[in-house]
Amino acid sequence: MTIPLASHFTLLVLLIASLHLCDAYNYKTYFYKQKVDHFGFANQDSFIQRYLINDEHWNRQGGPIFFYAGNEGDITLFAENTGFMWHIAPEFGAMVVFAEHRYYGVSLPYGNKSLSEPKYSGYLTSEQALADYVDLLMYLRSVIRGAEKSPVIVFGGSYGGMLAAWFRIKYPHIVQGAIAASAPILQFTNLTPCEKFGQLVTSDFAKESSECAQVIRESWAAINSVTADEEGRAWLSSTWKLCRPLKSQDDVKTLKDYLSNVWTNLAMVDYPYPANFLAPLPANPVKVVCTHLTAPGRTPKLLLEELFTGLTVYFNFTGTTKCMNVDEQADARLDDKGWDFQACTEMVMPMCYDGTHDFFEPAAWDFLEYADKCRKKWGVQPRPFMAPLMYGGRDISAASNIVFSNGLLDPWSTGGVMWNVSDSVVTVIIPEGAHHLDLRAPDPADPPSVILAREFEKSFIRSWIQSYKPGKGDHEE
Amino acid sequence: MTIPLASHFTLLVLLIASLHLCDAYNYKTYFYKQKVDHFGFANQDSFIQRYLINDEHWNRQGGPIFFYAGNEGDITLFAENTGFMWHIAPEFGAMVVFAEHRYYGVSLPYGNKSLSEPKYSGYLTSEQALADYVDLLMYLRSVIRGAEKSPVIVFGGSYGGMLAAWFRIKYPHIVQGAIAASAPILQFTNLTPCEKFGQLVTSDFAKESSECAQVIRESWAAINSVTADEEGRAWLSSTWKLCRPLKSQDDVKTLKDYLSNVWTNLAMVDYPYPANFLAPLPANPVKVVCTHLTAPGRTPKLLLEELFTGLTVYFNFTGTTKCMNVDEQADARLDDKGWDFQACTEMVMPMCYDGTHDFFEPAAWDFLEYADKCRKKWGVQPRPFMAPLMYGGRDISAASNIVFSNGLLDPWSTGGVMWNVSDSVVTVIIPEGAHHLDLRAPDPADPPSVILAREFEKSFIRSWIQSYKPGKGDHEE
Repeated sequence: MTIPLASHFTLLVLLIASLHLCDAYNYKTYFYKQKVDHFGFANQDSFIQRYLINDEHWNRQGGPIFFYAGNEGDITLFAENTGFMWHIAPEFGAMVVFAEHRYYGVSLPYGNKSLSEPKYSGYLTSEQALADYVDLLMYLRSVIRGAEKSPVIVFGGSYGGMLAAWFRIKYPHIVQGAIAASAPILQFTNLTPCEKFGQLVTSDFAKESSECAQVIRESWAAINSVTADEEGRAWLSSTWKLCRPLKSQDDVKTLKDYLSNVWTNLAMVDYPYPANFLAPLPANPVKVVCTHLTAPGRTPKLLLEELFTGLTVYFNFTGTTKCMNVDEQADARLDDKGWDFQACTEMVMPMCYDGTHDFFEPAAWDFLEYADKCRKKWGVQPRPFMAPLMYGGRDISAASNIVFSNGLLDPWSTGGVMWNVSDSVVTVIIPEGAHHLDLRAPDPADPPSVILAREFEKSFIRSWIQSYKPGKGDHEE
Repeated sequence: MTIPLASHFTLLVLLIASLHLCDAYNYKTYFYKQKVDHFGFANQDSFIQRYLINDEHWNRQGGPIFFYAGNEGDITLFAENTGFMWHIAPEFGAMVVFAEHRYYGVSLPYGNKSLSEPKYSGYLTSEQALADYVDLLMYLRSVIRGAEKSPVIVFGGSYGGMLAAWFRIKYPHIVQGAIAASAPILQFTNLTPCEKFGQLVTSDFAKESSECAQVIRESWAAINSVTADEEGRAWLSSTWKLCRPLKSQDDVKTLKDYLSNVWTNLAMVDYPYPANFLAPLPANPVKVVCTHLTAPGRTPKLLLEELFTGLTVYFNFTGTTKCMNVDEQADARLDDKGWDFQACTEMVMPMCYDGTHDFFEPAAWDFLEYADKCRKKWGVQPRPFMAPLMYGGRDISAASNIVFSNGLLDPWSTGGVMWNVSDSVVTVIIPEGAHHLDLRAPDPADPPSVILAREFEKSFIRSWIQSYKPGKGDHEE
């Protein structure tokens, strides 16, 4: 896989995003004028950032601000899919704020040109995004009567969880605590072995049945063998109901990348209740997929026919999808290009697969090749040590007031903080949890571990708010 | 005063700088290739940063690194004028490293063009400078055998002390503790009343004699009155032995700015031993100047004649200076333009004078006027809240392992941290101390308070080193 994270992360967003679109999340939309460059003066441009507010439960005498650190997508998606914040806002008397990450949604510093070349795209970094959030929060505290001394709790999931943790690490004077859900802040060079991620995806399937994992493991060679000639490509295109027939080896590569993402995404969103994903999924989707994948060791075509029955769960659970679209792009509100740029600059997250300890097609992590593709695609040289040097890597011992949560079903947990760093930087493990299950709205099918995790998080939020001593408004502009 | 800090800070550097040029400070000079922009990818240029190393006392099995966070000047000046680090290096087995601040000395990102326009100058910020130091330290730890797990203690005085404190605040995973001497991190908008600085300069003189302060207070009106016509300007030019006769009111303004700086600088470097400044000064120079300023209330010309005898202490203590040069520029190794730019961008430090509670010519703090001049001079809009928002302003309660030191003679102490923030962010007051006296080499005339301050600092340095648990070298490139 070339730039595996891009697709992982954005597809994740896709999958999570649409779950609660039907619920009523009431917010008002606002816009704030941000500096393009917070760290220098060479570029003095500004842009318009979108943010959302709900204050119907807010205690107007200094009640807390629950701030979602927007990640790689349209902020309305996160607002509508982080039910935990909405659910607990009333009991805390909290205002809920969702800030859109620069270069996503409608918060595009240079409009359609934003990702066109480094002179425009180069301001898409986590540091700049956090600085946006700092300015926005200081602005809100200064203009909203009653919010001048409000404590701020930052929330985020996935890359948003990384931002939440980093926000508290870098700006403890701005945010009083952070809930960092499924935040793989250790998924960087030299911090986590590159093979761990794929191994956990694999074990999610293998725990259902070893045959299930083995069918997937054998599928790559089967695909390679079947698609070696035109006739085989036609057979697979037809048998798998591909929307776009396989014409070349490039198309085969695209298909295999799609499959890798399907297995990865299934592991990430292996929730205990049905969820209306890009394509709807049943409860415990990995288990359901695995009921179809039972017979490894067969001929390539037989194996691929069986694999397709499993894939059908993912792309056609409703039975109404006409064909399997391996180019499937995100919901119109999503944009995977931004994350692809970030993965090519600061968010270099090494992944590798050996096909033995995992079920993926073997692929070494080759930074030089990776960097070469990034230079060609985006005109940038990746900086694999930028984020660890900026935020601390494994050494976050000086930080405070962070809860890291990780589900053991979630492959991203391999890059998460899985130990208590100190009394105030703690971790909560959700054994039955997939990717940031705790941030989702409560559901009757929730396992006890996620219910407890949410209580654990609430107790820390409460203590952060109680111990907050507001300053003298020194920062108001 | 238009941009008062520029001249204060740089003249300070001048005054301190040459004191120990005659001592033997042995270092080797090195250069490191730095990124111009650490926070984005729009500018992928690099430049050459200079740094100095002495390792003759270094314990090559992981002994500590004493790192000076270079401030607004040629790094050799700081290396030669921070005797404390050199003095204690042997007992700690420490390597001594002095890193030059970008845009100063020879570390010019764009050569002669570096300050010519924002597209070049715009990368001169404290954030970028600290990021330089991070990369440099990680590089040194990776290439110097035995330094892989060395703890790093950062030192700095004045703006360098601010950088030292901010370095620990922002990068506690890189530096294990900070000695921040005379670091006015609160000298920003809304954090410290603008009149405090001038009042402390004044009290330094008034404590010698109220007449002394009064003579200075009356001098502005006397100058204005005498220089109102050409004849008066000629008289003053001659009486004061000005190198360049006063031709216009602009020249008068320049003269008055020079005088303001003289009084301020005398207060800052009011050391208890003779020091070889730009012009040499006696021990306790404020006291010596005040022996000459005894008779307020006289006619303008008589008053200015007396004032001149006091000024002579400053500009002609040796008796060999031919004339008083109010345009006097720094040692060739100094460059006040860089600080002027910083004061117009991030380091906006409000100062105001009323002529009653202080002895300066009254001058309100007018940010709009200040910003207007900055835009015209540098093409930039100042960001007065940039540094407080970035580093915490008064709220540094989440920080750790910093010793702030302040001398009560030092006008910059009014913007310093003068209270113990926590068990590990502490302050030491040096009642008889001027500007970062503690960082200077020990001297027989040192007051007991500075001797104790240095012991206090050493005890913290020792504890930081002892409690350091080296990581796994995660960040090595």
